Amino acid sequence: MDYFTIAKEGHMRSLCAITLLTVIAFAFAGPAFAGGTPQEEANKKAVVEFYDKAINQKDFDAASKYIGSRYTQHNPGAADGPEGLKVFLQFAKEKLPNYHADIKKVLADGDYVMLHVHTTRESGDRGSAVMDIFKLENGKIVEHWDVVQPIPEKAANSNGMF
Amino acid sequence: MDYFTIAKEGHMRSLCAITLLTVIAFAFAGPAFAGGTPQEEANKKAVVEFYDKAINQKDFDAASKYIGSRYTQHNPGAADGPEGLKVFLQFAKEKLPNYHADIKKVLADGDYVMLHVHTTRESGDRGSAVMDIFKLENGKIVEHWDVVQPIPEKAANSNGMF
Repeated sequence: MDYFTIAKEGHMRSLCAITLLTVIAFAFAGPAFAGGTPQEEANKKAVVEFYDKAINQKDFDAASKYIGSRYTQHNPGAADGPEGLKVFLQFAKEKLPNYHADIKKVLADGDYVMLHVHTTRESGDRGSAVMDIFKLENGKIVEHWDVVQPIPEKAANSNGMF
Repeated sequence: MDYFTIAKEGHMRSLCAITLLTVIAFAFAGPAFAGGTPQEEANKKAVVEFYDKAINQKDFDAASKYIGSRYTQHNPGAADGPEGLKVFLQFAKEKLPNYHADIKKVLADGDYVMLHVHTTRESGDRGSAVMDIFKLENGKIVEHWDVVQPIPEKAANSNGMF
């Protein structure tokens, strides 16, 4: 084996090691810094945009673009399907025009996106703490669960609900 | 370059390619099949065990092993810190001995674990829908937020809250 072959083998080993380390670094840096897979990040973006179009803008046509082949509704106050959302947004537009959602946290895991939200009916009221879970298929929302709790006037700690 | 050297180079290339493909497959299979990074999976396991020890077993000593350097509490009904949890569990043990949590979903994103839970005071009652978010540092729980909503008798859809 001549020097050139040895050097070339060494070079290949280095290239192999560098490639491997880069891939490992990428694999671990991805979840640590970007927060998830590209699909999870896309799902987060879709849900945040949907929430703003629906809850803040009360624009069913704009919001419905983010809905997939179904919209299975688990909020006990809303009728099932996209039609249920449409009725709620029409109601909100007329009766709760200042109803506003301030998203505090967005988490994603696989097909699920979870929001932690502060909603108010009028600017400045205590409002409610809300957590939502959305299921997505092919980047579109197909299912929704939530839990809503009015923020109490007094609390046993001073940390707030967010 | 003799045949042996060429064959050895070819072997190295194959090894490098196989290693690379394995690492890539692992990196992508991780989030797709296991649901997250090893730390996210460990965090999920810790939170589920903590929840069972605390809420179902009402065993503060067992639960407190999962708590880190602090336990910042955002539930407005509970005092801050591990001491607040201790007081609540003592109260539950005496006044709500059958209080039970049935975990329906466990999601993890980075340092956060989110639970969707059905709680009942007595077996068979409608109970409440709960969503919790826990923040972890070095695999230990350091912060908790939740939202609690009693399940209403009637709902506008037939999908249930879970």
